Amino acid sequence: MYYVGIDLGGTNIAAGLVDDNGNILQKDSLPTLADRGYKAVVEDMSVLCERLTSAQGISMKQVKSIGIGSPGLCDAKNGVVIFAANLFFENVPVRDELSRYYDMPIYLENDATCAIAGEIVSGAAQGCKDAIIITLGTGVGSGIIINGKIFTGAFSGGGEIGHIVIEVGGEMCTCGQPGCFEAYASASALIRDAKLAAVRNPKTKILTLADNDINKINAKIVFDANYLGDADAEKLVDRYIDYLAIGLTNVVNIFQPEIIVVGGGISREGEKLLVPLRKRIHPFGTKKLITKIATSELGNDAGIVGSALVFKMQV
Amino acid sequence: MYYVGIDLGGTNIAAGLVDDNGNILQKDSLPTLADRGYKAVVEDMSVLCERLTSAQGISMKQVKSIGIGSPGLCDAKNGVVIFAANLFFENVPVRDELSRYYDMPIYLENDATCAIAGEIVSGAAQGCKDAIIITLGTGVGSGIIINGKIFTGAFSGGGEIGHIVIEVGGEMCTCGQPGCFEAYASASALIRDAKLAAVRNPKTKILTLADNDINKINAKIVFDANYLGDADAEKLVDRYIDYLAIGLTNVVNIFQPEIIVVGGGISREGEKLLVPLRKRIHPFGTKKLITKIATSELGNDAGIVGSALVFKMQV
Repeated sequence: MYYVGIDLGGTNIAAGLVDDNGNILQKDSLPTLADRGYKAVVEDMSVLCERLTSAQGISMKQVKSIGIGSPGLCDAKNGVVIFAANLFFENVPVRDELSRYYDMPIYLENDATCAIAGEIVSGAAQGCKDAIIITLGTGVGSGIIINGKIFTGAFSGGGEIGHIVIEVGGEMCTCGQPGCFEAYASASALIRDAKLAAVRNPKTKILTLADNDINKINAKIVFDANYLGDADAEKLVDRYIDYLAIGLTNVVNIFQPEIIVVGGGISREGEKLLVPLRKRIHPFGTKKLITKIATSELGNDAGIVGSALVFKMQV
Repeated sequence: MYYVGIDLGGTNIAAGLVDDNGNILQKDSLPTLADRGYKAVVEDMSVLCERLTSAQGISMKQVKSIGIGSPGLCDAKNGVVIFAANLFFENVPVRDELSRYYDMPIYLENDATCAIAGEIVSGAAQGCKDAIIITLGTGVGSGIIINGKIFTGAFSGGGEIGHIVIEVGGEMCTCGQPGCFEAYASASALIRDAKLAAVRNPKTKILTLADNDINKINAKIVFDANYLGDADAEKLVDRYIDYLAIGLTNVVNIFQPEIIVVGGGISREGEKLLVPLRKRIHPFGTKKLITKIATSELGNDAGIVGSALVFKMQV
């Protein structure tokens, strides 16, 4: 059976032709250019569908369904993106718009939900029924599968792990609430703190690695400077892992999943990140960490595989 | 149909004969005296069962099942109390022990889970499918029902809302982790802070209302002094509600239930507590508080009704 998975991002629309086992048979992408408005974006989704199938010598009539993973708040039932800041989308009927091109089941889910679905189908969480992904990027995204089904709270606006307050009156979050997990564990948070450190100490290796341009500082540079023994970077990474561990402790104490998959750019640090992280997670009660902590195996492909097959996990 | 519900507490074993609609037909209790060991405690459960039925002119043969609500960590599947500090219970096979007296289905669940089940059957959360209780007592307990079913995480050790860290490096919690919600929102936390305030200012009305005995300070006294306009008490209650609101904001952003029922001694403050509390909860995204915030309607009876009928909500 063939399925199309579309990972709608702020920069690119990535799409793939996927089989039942989560193998990507064909992959393609187009720039999102969201400022064109949603109709042009959805039209490009259909262009990608045609390209994918013709490259494999089949037609869209042989495809069973299309799944779309979108950033932001999604109404899966009605196929509407309620709000996605980086797409300028507000109450956009993505499913209905794509239905103008194809008469087949079309599914819409949040991109982090799709990512964990992908990891369950053929990645780090393969075979798990209770799995959570935490993506460390511009924000902190979360996708939650409980007992094999998508969990988003009673009115599909829950599951916002990035917006669990972990420090009352702490750093301001983009959501307008101070102290959210996202304000400490996102790549943006690490970059913010690194810039502050670079202002205080212009001799830090963080700045050297960024060609002495404060605006070029990214999360990887901070980790790299840390590996080089830079004192500022060591302090920043240590603190970053502390806060990340607090957030994951909360996830463990709330959901106690089989696995937490750490995704997003920062997850590329791999075991260098995970080894200290696991040690700092403190589960309630037994104190023993039963939940497995792993990094994403599919990376960017998780969104394609997951959006194609996430419908199997819908409630 | 008749059911027996047993609310096992650190001080008393309260039990009731309950019908399908959650009406308590007969109620009785005995002191727990947990230091006698679990066998004596379970024997007294059977004494209560006999008393309840004979008072109603029926026999235990006409009872369909027995449900037990226990504090601490419970293994519902095996009917074992894994750990309950105030009962000195560790891996106690409560169900098997009570099975020596009665050949009928016997269920065991955490007491907060039973309390929310009771509120759903005939209390503040009647008819709800997604409901959470937060009990503000010695600790902060939580019982979670999602889509009509008990939620305790993948390995039944989750759902520990009291142990969500809300202040990194904050007040030490009884669980050994600093900054837990429980360390700010329990009655014990309020009493701890009130004692500190009384030491700093021996003229505070908090101390007057406690007969000038710092050890007599309780949560109700702090609220009462606040209503009398005592500056220390006002500051304490204001801060207490701030932290409680942060914890409930987290609950809303994670679970977005239909209702959060606030239980435990402090919930008796009623709307005087709830009115400022609702204003300080900040849901992510829509910003609108869809979740209803209410106080317990059944009070102590929630545990009896809930333990009797909680089996209907087991997964």
